[in-house]
Amino acid sequence: MRTEPTGRSGLSRRGLVSGAGVVLGAAAGFAGGRALASPGEAQVAEEAGESVDFTQSYDFYTGDHQVGVDTLPQRHIVFMTFNVAASASKRDLQVLFARWSAAISQLMKGRPVGSVEPTRANAVPQDTGEAHELGPASLTVTLGLGPSLFDDRFGLAAYRPKLLQDLPTLPSDQLRPELVGGDLSLQACADDPQVAYHAIRDLARLGRGTVTTRWTVLGFGRASAGLGQSTPRNLMGFKDGTRNIKDAADLDDFVWVSDDLDWMKGGTYQVVRKIRMDIEVWDATTIETQHTTFGRDKGVGAPLTGSKEFDTPDFTATADGKPVIDPASHVALAAHENNGGVRILRRGYNFTDGLNDLGQLDAGLLFICYQKDPQQFVTLQTRLGSADLLNEYIAHIGSGIFAIPPAPAQGHYLGEALFG
Amino acid sequence: MRTEPTGRSGLSRRGLVSGAGVVLGAAAGFAGGRALASPGEAQVAEEAGESVDFTQSYDFYTGDHQVGVDTLPQRHIVFMTFNVAASASKRDLQVLFARWSAAISQLMKGRPVGSVEPTRANAVPQDTGEAHELGPASLTVTLGLGPSLFDDRFGLAAYRPKLLQDLPTLPSDQLRPELVGGDLSLQACADDPQVAYHAIRDLARLGRGTVTTRWTVLGFGRASAGLGQSTPRNLMGFKDGTRNIKDAADLDDFVWVSDDLDWMKGGTYQVVRKIRMDIEVWDATTIETQHTTFGRDKGVGAPLTGSKEFDTPDFTATADGKPVIDPASHVALAAHENNGGVRILRRGYNFTDGLNDLGQLDAGLLFICYQKDPQQFVTLQTRLGSADLLNEYIAHIGSGIFAIPPAPAQGHYLGEALFG
Repeated sequence: MRTEPTGRSGLSRRGLVSGAGVVLGAAAGFAGGRALASPGEAQVAEEAGESVDFTQSYDFYTGDHQVGVDTLPQRHIVFMTFNVAASASKRDLQVLFARWSAAISQLMKGRPVGSVEPTRANAVPQDTGEAHELGPASLTVTLGLGPSLFDDRFGLAAYRPKLLQDLPTLPSDQLRPELVGGDLSLQACADDPQVAYHAIRDLARLGRGTVTTRWTVLGFGRASAGLGQSTPRNLMGFKDGTRNIKDAADLDDFVWVSDDLDWMKGGTYQVVRKIRMDIEVWDATTIETQHTTFGRDKGVGAPLTGSKEFDTPDFTATADGKPVIDPASHVALAAHENNGGVRILRRGYNFTDGLNDLGQLDAGLLFICYQKDPQQFVTLQTRLGSADLLNEYIAHIGSGIFAIPPAPAQGHYLGEALFG
Repeated sequence: MRTEPTGRSGLSRRGLVSGAGVVLGAAAGFAGGRALASPGEAQVAEEAGESVDFTQSYDFYTGDHQVGVDTLPQRHIVFMTFNVAASASKRDLQVLFARWSAAISQLMKGRPVGSVEPTRANAVPQDTGEAHELGPASLTVTLGLGPSLFDDRFGLAAYRPKLLQDLPTLPSDQLRPELVGGDLSLQACADDPQVAYHAIRDLARLGRGTVTTRWTVLGFGRASAGLGQSTPRNLMGFKDGTRNIKDAADLDDFVWVSDDLDWMKGGTYQVVRKIRMDIEVWDATTIETQHTTFGRDKGVGAPLTGSKEFDTPDFTATADGKPVIDPASHVALAAHENNGGVRILRRGYNFTDGLNDLGQLDAGLLFICYQKDPQQFVTLQTRLGSADLLNEYIAHIGSGIFAIPPAPAQGHYLGEALFG
């Protein structure tokens, strides 16, 4: 059953260890037209053709970067943060990291965390069982360590990276206290939502007594693309993340930590924002407003100065004496050209919480990004939060920041260097 | 691109009109062993092998039964109920049904409901766009009519089927008023959650002014199987719905309405229950308790009197003078042999609402069933609710009942006979 990684190059295939290979777009060479109201079948197939192979798996013990950062975004996410219990010791934390590491490595192979059906009648099953035989489904689980973990509770203050600080208050913040922070984060991504949910559920269960749950988001559709993936759409109907990092060299420049404390080398910093979208307000706006807000065309996703999705935006172009791309548009404010070259690696997912108290759709974007210095995010969000035309339709309601240590080598565990 | 329905016989393929054909289990002939702690790769592949073909579509205008009832359960669901606005007239309702029918037929082909990107700058897009080019993903949308629709508001009282009554209070009810009832229901099932969400969102949007949203559930994993599908697991880790109806003759006997008002012939009745599971309590029980509760083995899903999942349970078998299958087990109480032959067609989905106020996992089963007479469900649930060992771990918190009219023929719309 095992096959080697398929031949496609690029950052996103690293770590792929098994499975029947990725089934790519059914019509990858199709030159899509720009007509949109009734896409032809070929056009539908282009994007719909990303079949899913539930037997594919990734390796946990890379000894390099953790999975789930530059891994091709899977279709689903369950993200959860935790507090360490007041009664827990440094030793408890160490045991937790070792146990979580062992469990994650099993889960990522599609295996249960211990017995599903123990032979002893009075034994409690170790694994909750709902993902039994569903396959690995490309599961990745990524562990993050929040700033508060490095306070005086566990004797870890000396290990706190200078860059790991609570995020400052940002212009568009409407944060809800129950959706902020956490000592730890777990990000489970998989192509089957039940596989991702099972992973978080069983890891939370393993942690009982040492950690308590804090907040969680279940993302039902990826809203970022990796190399070779078509760009998905957010719940505003726009392609999201066209200019995301897709080049391994950029990862070294912008994502992987090199100049930091030893235990963080090869790691990165995770910023998480739960962003509510007022989608019913958005749905009432004109197409012109929508185009102006994003600085892009809705159908193809092309910048308003171009005709194809990946055309480079021309922020100097004018028409009738006015810039074609509004300087307050999302694409202009987020562009690295306009931010001193700063880039981040995005990994977004759409979410819904059903209906709000007014009966309106309660939904939005779970924005997750990775960078070697959280200041990269702060720089971008400070500009976006102040001026982005999009702000009229969104609010940042949840927030967290976490240090992502490198992955363990075989025989080791996540965060081991903290307990040296 | 169009192909005829694939050659597999059985109830679930009816209505399949296009797509590259269903990709069935990669190892359908695999004779799975009973070892569970570490399933072999072949065993994983057996269940994981249900690849997804996002280009597959069903036909809406069957002129027969509505889709989404005996259709092979897709991987995701968005279920929503609505109230008709106090200001709406019978004519408004008629227009809504006609517009919804036209829109559903487009959505099920993977097409937007009107323009995604209108050419006129000051036009508001008709389609919200987030499912643009994702493909049909086997979308089905099913419309239901609640008892309250037939009160004196719209002059429909004469059309009310005798069988369409609010459900009686049932033994395990812990209903929350905000999760009960509705004049109308829409059930969208698809293999891509964004396709299902988009359908409900755009249909709700089309209905604005005539209907308001009432309650909704997003299901993230199917928990019922049709013919040829492996039986999925609920969040208690057990295979769920092994004995579900899978035979077309049983559909005629138990599901499709024949002896009722003319406009309901070929229709059915939908019962919906949002069932919370106290999964953290369940997770602390022994395997013996779990086996006794379900009357089945957790791994294979075999009745405790058998060795294979589809072995017929033997409710008379005893060991040490006690029944092998506890008479209060779920399988015993739900069995048609013990209920005067009564059967229902189940279509369940797992759901999660994240964490509750205590930080526990808030999750469960969205139970949907179809029957020609709602009394079939009432009979079963009265027994289950009184005695089921499972009751210690679950609570019915949401409930609805809806008449499902037959599907329109081309040129007609859902519920048209009500406006003759």
